[in-house]
Amino acid sequence: MTVMQHRCGCGIDIHAHVIPASFPRSMKTPEPESWPSMQSAQPCHQHVMIAGKIYRTVSDRCWDVPKRISDMDEMGLRLQVVSPMPELLSYWMKASDADDLLRYINDQTAEMIAHSGGRLAGLGAIPLQDIDLAIAELRRVKLDLGFAGVEVGSNINGRPIGAPEFDPFFAAAEELGAAVFVHALRPSGMDRLIGPPQLQQVLAYPSDVGLAAASVITTNLIVRRPKLRIAFSHGGGTLGLLLPRLAEGHRVFAPLRESIKPAPAEQARQLFYDSLVYDEPALRYLVDLFGETQIMLGTDHPFNFHDRTPVDRVLATFDDQRIRQHLLADNAMRFLGLAKGASA
Amino acid sequence: MTVMQHRCGCGIDIHAHVIPASFPRSMKTPEPESWPSMQSAQPCHQHVMIAGKIYRTVSDRCWDVPKRISDMDEMGLRLQVVSPMPELLSYWMKASDADDLLRYINDQTAEMIAHSGGRLAGLGAIPLQDIDLAIAELRRVKLDLGFAGVEVGSNINGRPIGAPEFDPFFAAAEELGAAVFVHALRPSGMDRLIGPPQLQQVLAYPSDVGLAAASVITTNLIVRRPKLRIAFSHGGGTLGLLLPRLAEGHRVFAPLRESIKPAPAEQARQLFYDSLVYDEPALRYLVDLFGETQIMLGTDHPFNFHDRTPVDRVLATFDDQRIRQHLLADNAMRFLGLAKGASA
Repeated sequence: MTVMQHRCGCGIDIHAHVIPASFPRSMKTPEPESWPSMQSAQPCHQHVMIAGKIYRTVSDRCWDVPKRISDMDEMGLRLQVVSPMPELLSYWMKASDADDLLRYINDQTAEMIAHSGGRLAGLGAIPLQDIDLAIAELRRVKLDLGFAGVEVGSNINGRPIGAPEFDPFFAAAEELGAAVFVHALRPSGMDRLIGPPQLQQVLAYPSDVGLAAASVITTNLIVRRPKLRIAFSHGGGTLGLLLPRLAEGHRVFAPLRESIKPAPAEQARQLFYDSLVYDEPALRYLVDLFGETQIMLGTDHPFNFHDRTPVDRVLATFDDQRIRQHLLADNAMRFLGLAKGASA
Repeated sequence: MTVMQHRCGCGIDIHAHVIPASFPRSMKTPEPESWPSMQSAQPCHQHVMIAGKIYRTVSDRCWDVPKRISDMDEMGLRLQVVSPMPELLSYWMKASDADDLLRYINDQTAEMIAHSGGRLAGLGAIPLQDIDLAIAELRRVKLDLGFAGVEVGSNINGRPIGAPEFDPFFAAAEELGAAVFVHALRPSGMDRLIGPPQLQQVLAYPSDVGLAAASVITTNLIVRRPKLRIAFSHGGGTLGLLLPRLAEGHRVFAPLRESIKPAPAEQARQLFYDSLVYDEPALRYLVDLFGETQIMLGTDHPFNFHDRTPVDRVLATFDDQRIRQHLLADNAMRFLGLAKGASA
């Protein structure tokens, strides 16, 4: 860790967020309740206002491309794949209103990418509360804006992303070669937390994304859509400890054995995960469990709760040059459909 | 694994369940809705009926002590600490009715222990929906029935076990030297599961007990009650992957840093966990994380979904004789208050 090996600038970060510098007023009267707006905060910061309250106070790194690139240089990243702050996904808004908002956000994201000199790539937002609108915007962000794919929530209004009603979306993503990044959002288990509001992000987010990844396995999504490239935030959340128990349940209970094929552990090794666990033993455990070809850098930059040393952490955790190269960049290239010989 | 080292019969299993052979009718008219009863099933099995439906079909090992001891011999166990099937905890029943039921179950458990020739010890059930009744029954099972302590749910009607309203119970448990075993129950996240009903046990149980253990840490229970001996089922569920993220959140967010003292990882290493993860890498990860002094055998015997080779798994996972001895028996002795020099 003492040698600043990260100066190589070799990393690809697939979990980083953007927020537009400002939001237009909605064209609807009255404005939809959760339509966002910005309000001045301390220097270089803005409050993201949602439903009349401060949702989060964020730094100008969320929209300022030169400052972001300066951070990336510090962190040893050559490319960041940026997606909207998840709360902006707006699944709880009327679909046509959400579609207006998400098209604006996607266009703003495309602007940032255009001004990044090749240092940023994009994951768009789509209104999954309406599958047809969602697929139309998926096509636009992939084909017109040139994004790598889309970010989706771990659940859409309480339904986990593996639920069968989302299959037409996954069919379209597979056909288009669009990468799908599943991010924790409005999690279950909120009534199980005792403490400050940050526990939502800290504890309930990984729990929800773990159950979301499990829902993808229990419904055999990757078997039905074998060319789909799908990744889960926060190292797959709690999936890493759910999976051994799911594997044993699969051996013991006939209904699970009959409905989940092939076995859960095998399916899990065909999904992608980011490295965002802030911990060397946990990262090593996940690489052993999911495979060295399935984990990619993720940072949550530029939010407060982001991994400031993603490249150094990989270098400190793994001596093997091949594993390092997989985690730092090669797996991300495959996930994004940019690897040599990739079909997408 | 080829040498049958488990024939040593050295293991202490702190996670095993009992069900009385039959239930009396309730003294109330009409009978409380979830008052249990037994119905004949296949040979050597009974259906546990709750609210007019088969809750679970169970083998006579649940109440037949000689058969249980025969299983224990096969599994290499010298002692099982038995607790009621968690659904019987009946927190959702009127407290006085639950108290009637749980006193009956505790007395039946005491009978089984009395006929076990020292091979069984007990964890009682208490009606935690009423703290005063719960403490009274805690005192009875510890002082009159001679149990090691009690089993409690990961949540009581949706409130996690770390919630402040349960502190008087923990104060009494600490004072009495009663061990507390926290078992997953009626979990959160049920709406995130897509698949057969067994996914409740397989996926939602570990998620709920993980959040329950986190609630104990975020409220500093073990700091407030330093002599309390408290253990979590299923290896602490998902806690092992929540903890690194909680540790980082604690470093980043002032409200967490100010409210959780000492740091989460340090508190986690003062709690106990069972070994019930069915997986060598997961067990190794948890021992590294929580400490070799904090993990004890747990099997979920005699339910279908139980670990049939708990001792062999420890022997296969760890070469170090001291770690083996800790996990197989010594940690359980400390948890149960039976270790030499223990204060309780």
